[in-house]
Amino acid sequence: MPEPRPDTQQVIAENREYTLFSWSVQGQANPIHMVGGKGSHFYDGDGNTWLDFSSQLININVGHQHPKVLQAIKDQVDRMCFAGPSFATDVRAELGKKLAEVTGLAKSFFTLGGSEANENAIKMAKLYTGRDKIITRYRSYHGATMGSMSASGDPRRWPVEPGIPGIVRVFDPYMYRPPMGGSAEEWEDGCITHIEEVIQLEGPHTIAAMLVEGITGSNGLLIPPDSYYPRLRALLDKYGILLIDDEVMSGFGRTGKWLATQHYGIVPDIVTCAKGLTSGYMPLGAVIVNQKIADYFENHFLAGGLTYSGHPVSLAAAIANLKVYEEERLFEHTLELGKYLGERLEAMKRKYACVGDVRYIGLFSVLELVKDKRTKEPLAPYNGTSPEMARLTSHIKSRHVYAFSRFNMIWVCPPLVITKEELDAGLDVYEEALALVDEMIGAPVAAD
Amino acid sequence: MPEPRPDTQQVIAENREYTLFSWSVQGQANPIHMVGGKGSHFYDGDGNTWLDFSSQLININVGHQHPKVLQAIKDQVDRMCFAGPSFATDVRAELGKKLAEVTGLAKSFFTLGGSEANENAIKMAKLYTGRDKIITRYRSYHGATMGSMSASGDPRRWPVEPGIPGIVRVFDPYMYRPPMGGSAEEWEDGCITHIEEVIQLEGPHTIAAMLVEGITGSNGLLIPPDSYYPRLRALLDKYGILLIDDEVMSGFGRTGKWLATQHYGIVPDIVTCAKGLTSGYMPLGAVIVNQKIADYFENHFLAGGLTYSGHPVSLAAAIANLKVYEEERLFEHTLELGKYLGERLEAMKRKYACVGDVRYIGLFSVLELVKDKRTKEPLAPYNGTSPEMARLTSHIKSRHVYAFSRFNMIWVCPPLVITKEELDAGLDVYEEALALVDEMIGAPVAAD
Repeated sequence: MPEPRPDTQQVIAENREYTLFSWSVQGQANPIHMVGGKGSHFYDGDGNTWLDFSSQLININVGHQHPKVLQAIKDQVDRMCFAGPSFATDVRAELGKKLAEVTGLAKSFFTLGGSEANENAIKMAKLYTGRDKIITRYRSYHGATMGSMSASGDPRRWPVEPGIPGIVRVFDPYMYRPPMGGSAEEWEDGCITHIEEVIQLEGPHTIAAMLVEGITGSNGLLIPPDSYYPRLRALLDKYGILLIDDEVMSGFGRTGKWLATQHYGIVPDIVTCAKGLTSGYMPLGAVIVNQKIADYFENHFLAGGLTYSGHPVSLAAAIANLKVYEEERLFEHTLELGKYLGERLEAMKRKYACVGDVRYIGLFSVLELVKDKRTKEPLAPYNGTSPEMARLTSHIKSRHVYAFSRFNMIWVCPPLVITKEELDAGLDVYEEALALVDEMIGAPVAAD
Repeated sequence: MPEPRPDTQQVIAENREYTLFSWSVQGQANPIHMVGGKGSHFYDGDGNTWLDFSSQLININVGHQHPKVLQAIKDQVDRMCFAGPSFATDVRAELGKKLAEVTGLAKSFFTLGGSEANENAIKMAKLYTGRDKIITRYRSYHGATMGSMSASGDPRRWPVEPGIPGIVRVFDPYMYRPPMGGSAEEWEDGCITHIEEVIQLEGPHTIAAMLVEGITGSNGLLIPPDSYYPRLRALLDKYGILLIDDEVMSGFGRTGKWLATQHYGIVPDIVTCAKGLTSGYMPLGAVIVNQKIADYFENHFLAGGLTYSGHPVSLAAAIANLKVYEEERLFEHTLELGKYLGERLEAMKRKYACVGDVRYIGLFSVLELVKDKRTKEPLAPYNGTSPEMARLTSHIKSRHVYAFSRFNMIWVCPPLVITKEELDAGLDVYEEALALVDEMIGAPVAAD
């Protein structure tokens, strides 16, 4: 654990004076001064060690300061720090080949993050099909640039609408709260059949692609029923509509596989990724397309690009990061520990009145909190917060566990290198906080 | 000079097999295998040394592999490679403070490149003013994500239109070819007065901002008359319209100042930047806003963000890169050498029949080529090429000078560290190529 830094108050004050923070009212931003990290932990300027239960923004999959990734970055910096996007480089060949291998697709176009990846995927789908519309889902987030933001269903789009034309939204495989009412069993069917109804009414020949998160991330970790993806794949194939699989958050080990959709035995036409691709050590995103789409662009103009497409240092970081996944067998570890995590979450759901639902796959999981298990009344409203949620998150923060929460949900998404002991320590803190919430909503004291 | 690499053909083949190249028909992409560089030169896998006359994509301002920037990156990687966007870091404070100092503005929001910077600038302008429209110029490029692409006038937007609503385009200070006909003197007035006419007809209260490149870059390096910016600033102030100054290409020393608009004595409300901010060593962009806009977001929600906003390694690279500008007095060097470059370009215009116009400021310059100086018939059509342009560029390439060309124009934008001798060597190759073009268009042989 590092010593407290004498300049922490000044660093925080100058961050606030000279920089703007994402998705915030600036006057309410309350940044932690981060000074370093190791594995599942990071350190702040006051000398505290934090357990990182959200992998920063669900991206630092190999944990903080993994020596092999750091070394690969430094080596590439010394060899060749930059090459423009029109150049061939050895790292570009190596990563492109690796991504084709792990996804079963053909060619990669490199961006700097997930938003740009989705922008380019949408573009390519429109150019390839000659069609204009994109189907997306309401409870989704695909990025903040105008194409990706328009494609998102998330409330973060509200302040900047209207966006690009041609976005058509459908409902989600949200089995805990079927949007049409009815049971989860009915919605298992309905969540696909209503998409076909929309396709019919929009005109199948006008729809280029459907864009979905492999597993919906920041809108509630909505795990589809096993039938969802095989049926969706067949439905889209029937109408010649491409499936774009946004694996920015759910891909690259988060669920214990390269792609979350690999759990369901289907292959998308286009995959977008970022985050776990480099574990955030360097900014990188990618659009990976199948052979048919790659062939199309062999003699058609690909109308997209950016100065830092194929940045050699980003590519080198990704290559090293993917090697760590394999050498340290992190996906196996994720599947195994994820099983244990699921058991603990189910036990928490049984024990605490405020836990309405738990959803988990690998080390990608969420607790959805309610005031009443029977009515499912959320602990905070959609796009809002509540005293109960504030108490939950402030308790967890006070114990130096760093967690991602939103609306009436709190996530458990630690680095994939986390140990069982570290995971237990964090979950124990969550349990303390859930007990406080149960008290606030007047539930009987939970017994083990 | 490095040895030829035995694997070069394989690297190129695998780049083509597994990756997609920007703004290209893939079958026509002919990538060079880059293996390293130093200062104004880079090396290919066949053992050739290239003189980089375009600074890659007009971004590697401190030249290839500058040891101080490389070291700063490696040091930051060892200290702390990643922190999420909601954290305060020492490098974030330091760069934010520096950018406020050099621009005269208040606060920075960090992105990964110019396109995302323009996306966020447009967003902030709309949120701050409560107005919906953005005025941009026809001959402009602001990035490839849908907001920035829609704001561009460049033909690169054509394949993906329609884009976001609310973009209104006006004409450029293109003094060589006034779009309304008439003389350059008339257009000096007209290029401002027609903007006021558009503002009146669109409704001044509907217009949030005007977005302009400080000096138009990839659409022809259009240098405005001295009166342009003071008049534009006054015009926009009159209607409460913000001025967003896109300095992605023209900023950070390219013209010998921090911002190209500083040549004209005005201060924009928002500056966007990237490229020269880090010289491309790490991906980084920024939106820098004035105090009024910063104050607005103190108690209003800033609806924008990205996982890699404020990436510590990118910030560290920028800090080191800006120090190199100052320690090595590169802006002074740029102004001085730029003066010499201007003299040589003017001499080339006098000497070669095909050189219709030359435009230059600092080390940011272009030659606009014509079939006939009197009629100004372009050597290649807008958004097209010609046998003459192909011969020009293939000759320059054959002499291992790396140049950016487009339509009927060829740029001279070397790294700011270039020496007079290196500059002369490259310009001599350009002259060889211009002589070949003169021959093709049947002009009398040029005499010194």
